[in-house]
Amino acid sequence: MNDRRTICVVGIGAGDPDHLTLQAVKALNRAEVFFLLDKGREKSDLTGLREEILDRHVDHPYRVVQATDPERDRTAATPGYTPAVDDWRSRRADIYERLVRDELPEGGCGAFLVWGDPSLYDSTLAILAEVRGRGTVDFDCEVVPGISSVSALAARHRTGLNRVGRPVQITTGRRLAEAGGLPEGVDDLVVMLDAHQSFAGLDPELEIFWGAYLGTADEILVSGRLAEVAERILALRAEARARKGWIMDTYLLRRP
Amino acid sequence: MNDRRTICVVGIGAGDPDHLTLQAVKALNRAEVFFLLDKGREKSDLTGLREEILDRHVDHPYRVVQATDPERDRTAATPGYTPAVDDWRSRRADIYERLVRDELPEGGCGAFLVWGDPSLYDSTLAILAEVRGRGTVDFDCEVVPGISSVSALAARHRTGLNRVGRPVQITTGRRLAEAGGLPEGVDDLVVMLDAHQSFAGLDPELEIFWGAYLGTADEILVSGRLAEVAERILALRAEARARKGWIMDTYLLRRP
Repeated sequence: MNDRRTICVVGIGAGDPDHLTLQAVKALNRAEVFFLLDKGREKSDLTGLREEILDRHVDHPYRVVQATDPERDRTAATPGYTPAVDDWRSRRADIYERLVRDELPEGGCGAFLVWGDPSLYDSTLAILAEVRGRGTVDFDCEVVPGISSVSALAARHRTGLNRVGRPVQITTGRRLAEAGGLPEGVDDLVVMLDAHQSFAGLDPELEIFWGAYLGTADEILVSGRLAEVAERILALRAEARARKGWIMDTYLLRRP
Repeated sequence: MNDRRTICVVGIGAGDPDHLTLQAVKALNRAEVFFLLDKGREKSDLTGLREEILDRHVDHPYRVVQATDPERDRTAATPGYTPAVDDWRSRRADIYERLVRDELPEGGCGAFLVWGDPSLYDSTLAILAEVRGRGTVDFDCEVVPGISSVSALAARHRTGLNRVGRPVQITTGRRLAEAGGLPEGVDDLVVMLDAHQSFAGLDPELEIFWGAYLGTADEILVSGRLAEVAERILALRAEARARKGWIMDTYLLRRP
């Protein structure tokens, strides 16, 4: 009796197809169905990259199931935005449940391809846990770690994330904006999901290591003191975003 | 004229040879010399793993240069331990300078193999920057990101590192011991380099996701509330360490 489904959550790296690990290649080759979730926005570049990865590395016939991830209601005025997130997560769980139950036969193996590393600012694992908690479809879950945009950023800037014996914190643009600076005791702060360029208003003596479209042909890197480079990053980011229709960027802030 | 040396700092993942990325495999295949640095302690398992990686993936003749990394003087009583670290770093830079200058011909490509990800609690990049600053040997530096033990830990426990919209901090056992708990505003804390099992004295309601020898045949995973699993982790860790002669472990602490 091996009729349990297996779901592999596979980190595929930050944008460079060569970020793929050997473990990920093996996992992809066990799957018969690939679930590609998109935000329904202008991310066809990213869909193309994933299809290229499958095309290049999967050596058996496979099926791709695309679905649209519901957008989160970001207009809610409540701080902490937990109710909106809960509702959004529940709607996503409905979709994932349907995918696993209806698109993957019993005993089959399906894979979710996740940008970066599934452990960092990605909700696939939490959604699948919620689906499993419902008890409506049984499956095993395996996770393949991937190169996160954080690791890719540091590598491209040839810098460490932390100083000797010191911590590094990874946070969101929203939290940075709320705090107005680096947390106490933290000299190195990585900021993800910053739609509002919260670095622009900070202590101009902070160093920034910024990167967009990391690992892709469109990659942009800028580093330096905020006093010297903040304006340039704002301009480059606005220009790139207008040109491509979307942007993925992240940065490290460092106390001198 | 292309007589500049190239040094690739290649993250090779947390212990599983399949953590290697396609980018890392390509970088290894550009190198003619591999520098393996060891602490001079009982880490022959780790040396063996690296040699296995080279053996399996490098398809041209290559040379391996082993060197011993000087041990840091951890007996210094000064808090912050900066002078000891400075001296240690300077002695390491002497060794790295000699390796790059004497063991790699001009125009050649050499690689340092780094466990995990070169950006996280690894000093290779800082040492090479110091060597370059001396101006005695000129080289280009490229960094290949790797799967860190942090990503591997989260993947094996099938958990995210952060909660939705919340930060995650990565720190050392020493800092955790000093703080006596999680920093304010941080609900998820990853602890590395903890020789003193600082989790044992913390709030028993905290959840821990602990892993040792991640990705290897000796891997051990334990998770649960500290009240329930701290004693078991201490016992397992002591037993494994005595049996193998060394241990590499890391853990995530989570506020419930």
